[in-house]
Amino acid sequence: MSYLGVGVSPGNVAVHHGSDLKVFERRVRLGELILRCVICVLALVSAVLVGTDTQVKRIFSIEKKAQFTDMKALVFLVVANGIAAAYSGVHVLRCIVSMVRGSVLFNKPLAWAIFSGDQMMTYLCLAATASATQGSLFAKLGEPALQWMKICNMYGKFCNQIGEGIASAVLVSLSMVILSAISAFCLFRLYGENKAKNNARW
Amino acid sequence: MSYLGVGVSPGNVAVHHGSDLKVFERRVRLGELILRCVICVLALVSAVLVGTDTQVKRIFSIEKKAQFTDMKALVFLVVANGIAAAYSGVHVLRCIVSMVRGSVLFNKPLAWAIFSGDQMMTYLCLAATASATQGSLFAKLGEPALQWMKICNMYGKFCNQIGEGIASAVLVSLSMVILSAISAFCLFRLYGENKAKNNARW
Repeated sequence: MSYLGVGVSPGNVAVHHGSDLKVFERRVRLGELILRCVICVLALVSAVLVGTDTQVKRIFSIEKKAQFTDMKALVFLVVANGIAAAYSGVHVLRCIVSMVRGSVLFNKPLAWAIFSGDQMMTYLCLAATASATQGSLFAKLGEPALQWMKICNMYGKFCNQIGEGIASAVLVSLSMVILSAISAFCLFRLYGENKAKNNARW
Repeated sequence: MSYLGVGVSPGNVAVHHGSDLKVFERRVRLGELILRCVICVLALVSAVLVGTDTQVKRIFSIEKKAQFTDMKALVFLVVANGIAAAYSGVHVLRCIVSMVRGSVLFNKPLAWAIFSGDQMMTYLCLAATASATQGSLFAKLGEPALQWMKICNMYGKFCNQIGEGIASAVLVSLSMVILSAISAFCLFRLYGENKAKNNARW
């Protein structure tokens, strides 16, 4: 199903519009592919950095081990980034297949599915990053009013690695924000104001 | 600037499309107005509930006072909800003015401004709600592995009111998510696929 040249004068103008649209489509798809690759890699890096982080501290004869499962917010971060990496991996394959085939996204149900998925992933990543950052700030600075003590002066190496994981998760969230704007654009431009009938059904 | 009827056969069809579009426009604007009113009220409720919450506990001769400033995440929540309430209030006025005037949003810079503002507010509200929820979960359940003790068994009334404030903030975030999808729709449909030239410039 192609809308190229609909409502446009015949001849050179239609050809010109068509080629402009193709160049633009290629740019959008390339941008989407790059962003999805970046998200896949960074989400994996974040999940691995946080998930494999441990530090053992010996205090007299007692051995204490810090690991990410000590804080539910970090478990949430690892799970969310794992899902984001898998989701982005699947979409990287989809993008490559559609680029090889040269197909253009004019399929509304697929555009809706991609838009909804991207929105959910963005909010999931953002919520996980915000709650992990909050938990880590308590661990780094403590909360004297509630008598929650700092733990990062005991587990310095552990906290640094968690910090790197959260920095990576922040980049994942920012990339997801841009990506969800791109997928909103790809969906909603299909409801251009020339198609009033479609609009009314929406 | 009106695109009504462009690329459509003359006569009844164009008129029919035009009236469909008007009905649809009215529904979108009404939905937007209702959502913005809901957000304005709920954000204000959340900010007031959390911001005015205090409880004094006397332990022997020592008097201890719990208030929202004891936890930075709650301060962030109050500030974010205050900003969301003010932002929504301004947009309620804009929606009413555009409904009274009967103008349709075909102005790209304005649509971009609304879209960007809504996106930022959505992410701000979501981040604030997620971090406040995380902090409150620590307060409610404690984190035994880190020796952070529960405080809600001491300050029950205080914690309940914070919980109501967070529930209200969750509703604000969900409404903002729907609203940002509506503003994305209002912006990106202006880049319908019939306007290849505009697309290429984006």
